This record gives sequence, structure tokens and C-alpha cells, in this order.
Amino acid sequence: MRKIIFVLLFSFIGNLFADPLPSWNEGNTKKSIIDFVQAVTNKSNPNYVTPENRIATIDNDGTLWVEQPLYTQFIFAIDRVKTLAPSHPDWKKQSPFSLILSGDKQLLSKLSFKDMEQILAVTHAGISVEQYHDLAAKWLATAKNPRFQHLFTEDVYQPMLEVMNYLRANQFIIYIVSGGGQDFIRAYAEPVYHVQPENVIGTLEKTKYVNQQNHPMIMKLPTVLLIDDKTGKAEAINYFIGRKPIIAFGNSDGDREMLEWTQSNKTSHLMLLVHHDDAVREYAYGPKSKVGTFSDSLMAEAIKNNWKIISMKKDWKVIFPFDLNKN
Amino acid sequence: MRKIIFVLLFSFIGNLFADPLPSWNEGNTKKSIIDFVQAVTNKSNPNYVTPENRIATIDNDGTLWVEQPLYTQFIFAIDRVKTLAPSHPDWKKQSPFSLILSGDKQLLSKLSFKDMEQILAVTHAGISVEQYHDLAAKWLATAKNPRFQHLFTEDVYQPMLEVMNYLRANQFIIYIVSGGGQDFIRAYAEPVYHVQPENVIGTLEKTKYVNQQNHPMIMKLPTVLLIDDKTGKAEAINYFIGRKPIIAFGNSDGDREMLEWTQSNKTSHLMLLVHHDDAVREYAYGPKSKVGTFSDSLMAEAIKNNWKIISMKKDWKVIFPFDLNKN
Repeated sequence: MRKIIFVLLFSFIGNLFADPLPSWNEGNTKKSIIDFVQAVTNKSNPNYVTPENRIATIDNDGTLWVEQPLYTQFIFAIDRVKTLAPSHPDWKKQSPFSLILSGDKQLLSKLSFKDMEQILAVTHAGISVEQYHDLAAKWLATAKNPRFQHLFTEDVYQPMLEVMNYLRANQFIIYIVSGGGQDFIRAYAEPVYHVQPENVIGTLEKTKYVNQQNHPMIMKLPTVLLIDDKTGKAEAINYFIGRKPIIAFGNSDGDREMLEWTQSNKTSHLMLLVHHDDAVREYAYGPKSKVGTFSDSLMAEAIKNNWKIISMKKDWKVIFPFDLNKN
Repeated sequence: MRKIIFVLLFSFIGNLFADPLPSWNEGNTKKSIIDFVQAVTNKSNPNYVTPENRIATIDNDGTLWVEQPLYTQFIFAIDRVKTLAPSHPDWKKQSPFSLILSGDKQLLSKLSFKDMEQILAVTHAGISVEQYHDLAAKWLATAKNPRFQHLFTEDVYQPMLEVMNYLRANQFIIYIVSGGGQDFIRAYAEPVYHVQPENVIGTLEKTKYVNQQNHPMIMKLPTVLLIDDKTGKAEAINYFIGRKPIIAFGNSDGDREMLEWTQSNKTSHLMLLVHHDDAVREYAYGPKSKVGTFSDSLMAEAIKNNWKIISMKKDWKVIFPFDLNKN
């Protein structure tokens, strides 16, 4: 019995001093996260927040995983165009499909968002949500980021995985709030992030329930119901959660309103933006990037409101889980 | 120490034999619920379901609380027309507002759903979600059902409150899935049903995020984003939960697809419909009712698929919590 108590005691003391964010360099950013979590979980602290109100909303592309050279979901859609091409002979002469099928090496930089909308509408509709989930999961099981040569699902940020684990251990309820398609994120959020389907908020396509011979299906339609980006993020948080977050992580102009909404919470709150300033280990991009635009006005608003800027270069000791093995 | 063990043991045995559904008469319906819950929570049962998949979806109007003579939210909207009338002199000559302001005693039966849509659009928009929540909560604090002369929030079904407590005690995750407005239900779901805002799925109105001088608000717009009724219930369950329910309760044609969707779950599942057949203690209505239509085709589908019909008259010992005091 005494032995058990000793073991428990040492494990307790060990946890007390264990670094919950080992892939973060010491500094103001890391400290702001730990101080915040300690304050809102301490009942005797004036900033204490009850567990059911510990809502964390985290953007996905560029905040949890790599979004360059193009959003992963778009690369999936492009691959799907190639797969579906044999049954669409007209695509050979029809832009933007012809561009994809031509095998152009500069393809990714040539496609506009308007092209992508057209591609998404064609490749993401006409199948059931369940079928789509299976297609996406199957693709994700082998598809690799062209630069890192790791599976897309491995190109996630180790420091952010640690943040999610730390928040979960402190009874935060984590929601992914992404401009990406909800169905695409749900295809991997559980194995990769331990985020369950009901906690994935993304852009919603319209769907249609059909029931043929007692086999109901939810079919995906080629039109958008709600774009979960910019003002849409605050609106979706209201629909899906109905509470304001107390902590929010983003990385681009699309996250501005989510952070403003979090800041308007009357309880204690913390807002953070991942800044991609590390061209060597990942990417450096900002106001001029088509993907993950971080405008000067966002930076100005962040500074004015004391939102924390996470410098990938300075704050993160390692970027990817597969980097851990190298140390 | 021995004393404590005895107390714990007796409390354990007490719980083991305590009736989790004391307001239900013994019979097949009650037995089907208890058998189902015992099976899916028993790890050695082939029908065991892990806690995160124990999704329960429950309709609101007519399943959890009274929906006659008209949905409570509509009565709220009608009262709001009266409140707002002084600043809308044109309403006196404009149908359906003129009908409301005329003080007609047969008003509730005269209003069509088309009228109600118009009334909802005017009374439920142009304010923020937060302001709406406060208005609804304030109204609900005093508004009474004209027949029962109890607050609307007291006209809830005691047997269903017991079902919710029983499911919660067995680690089910309860969602309200209602054709009513999400914001209206959220105004009372927590105090009345212990259902938190993120677990309330209702009809969604479009909203618009606005941020004036660092005071962000989500404004309600007079158009519908998603009608959470009929096929919309299955679609909304997919958006909000992303898993199929294993148990679903409804009471009308609007719940048909939710029950079909539940039935298509590959794990064990149970579907139930409250049948209003008790004109003495509540109401008796069915295929011909404008509110809460329970059509013959729904009854036929229920019987064919072994959905349980909850007879209010035969299965429920008491209807309302305030009836408990009378025994």
C-alpha cells in the first residue's frame, strides 16, 4: 500500500513539472498559453471558467497542418478529376479540367479559386456523404505532400498537437473551425487529431436525404450551404456551439472574425495566430499569398488587441511529428 | 470504514432495483426502452455500443412538451406582434397582423402556416441572437399554456424527462432535433431539459456577423438557412453530429426521416413515436391535426418497421411534473 502511494505521489509530482508543450521554445507565446490554461482551470483564480464553457476553436489549414502549395482538399479534388476523366471525355476540351489533364507542372499555381469552386462542385457531389468519406479516407491513406514526402496526414504541426492534448487534459472542448469542407476534415480528424465528427465545423455543402427501398442516404449536392470562413466562422460557431470560445487559434484573414468573436467573450479569453515565417523548415508567406493570406490589416488588428503571434521560426522547436525522431 | 462500505453497498443495490422510469406503466413500451439501454451499455452483450456512439435524438414539440393548440414559439411570435404593434401602425390594416391585433378569440385556429412564416420573419429578425435569447427567456418566465394554466416550460412530459435522465445516466449523448427555431429552444433547453446549447439542433435562420466599434454581434435575418423538419432532420443530424443516432423519439410526420436514419444504423437501434391519444389528460390528435400531424402512412411505416408507439393514455402514469404532487 505504501509503495502504491509513493508511485502515485511521484507520478503526480512528475506531471506537475512535466512540460505540457515540449516542442515549444520558452518565451512569451508559450507562457501565454500555459498561464491562460492554469488561470481558467484554477477555481480560486478570478478568471476561472467552468469546464462546459472551456470552448477552444482551432482553424485547420495552416494552423494544424500544411496548406502550401495548395489546400490538401483541392489536391484531392484535382486527383479526383484525373480519376473521373475517362467517363468525362468532354473535360479534355473544357477549362479548368483540360488544364489538369494536360499534366502541366505549374498546375497548382495556375488554378484560380474560381477554377477550384468548379472542380469542387463536380468532384464533391453526386455521391453520398458516406461514399465521399470512404473516398477521402482512401486517398489520404497514401497521398503525400509533394515537398515533405510524407502523407498529408503526417504534415501536421507537432506543437499544435501538443496544445490540443494539453487543452483536452484540462477539460477544454476542442472544435475544428475550418474553411475546408466538413466532410473532408471528418475523414481524418478522429485518427489524426482525436477530434470527433460532431466537433468538426467546416464549410457545408447542401445535401439531400433520399430513401430508396429502405436504404437512406445523404447525398452531397454541388451547392454551398454555408462558407465557414471570415464572418461565416463566427456565424457557424453560433449555430454549432451556441457559446463563445475562450481560446481560438488561426493563421489567416479567414480567422479574423473568429478571433474577434472570442475576444468579445466576457470571461477570460486568448487569441493566437500562427505566423508562417519559416521558409527553411516550412514556408514563409503573408499578405501576398493566395493561400493563407495574412494581411497587414490583420497584423495591425492582432497587435492592437494583444492577439498572440506564434512565430513558427522562433516559437516552435520542431514543426512535424516526424522531426521528433531526428533529435 | 465498514459502515461506509455498507452504505455504498445498499445504495448500489438500491440503484440496481430502483425504477429508472417510475412515471411509465409497466408494459412493452417501457420494457423496450429499458431492455435497449441495458443491452447497449453491457460490454458482454453483442449489441454493446461505445459511449461516444450512444447518440439519442429527441424531437421537441409534442415529444418533450405540449404543442397544442399551437407551437409555443408561434404564441411567442404572436405576443411579440402585439408588443411591436405601436411602432407599426400599418399592421392594423395588413393581414395577418390585423387578425392578431383584432383580438379574435379563434385566432390560433385561423392562422395558417403561411401566416406564421410571415409573422416569424418579422418578429424573429433584426435583432441579435443574444437579444433574441433574452426576449424569449423573459417571455418564457411568465407565459402560460391557456389550457393547463402552467408556464409553458412546466408543460413538459414527466415520462420523457425520466427517459432523458435515464439515458444521461447511461452515458448517452442527447440532442434535441426540432423543427422549432434553434434560438428559441436554446433559451430554455438548459434549465428545463439539462440540454446544453451545442446539443440543440433546430431550424436555422440565416444570420449576419457585424462588428461595430469592437462590439461584434450575430444578427438574425428574416430568411431560413435550414428547415430542421422531415428530410431536413436527417440532413441536420449529419451536419451537426456526423454519426447516426441509436435511439430516436418523435411524434409526427416531421420525425419520419429521423427515425429512418436511426434505423439505418448498423449498430443496435430503437425508434419510438409518442402518440397523442389522451384527450382527458392532454390531447388526442392524429392524421387530421394541423399541428403534429401523425398520418396513417407514418403509422403504417412504424408498424412495418417495429417502431414503438408510445400511447400517452396507456404508457404514461402521469403526464406533467406538476401532476406528481397530486398522487
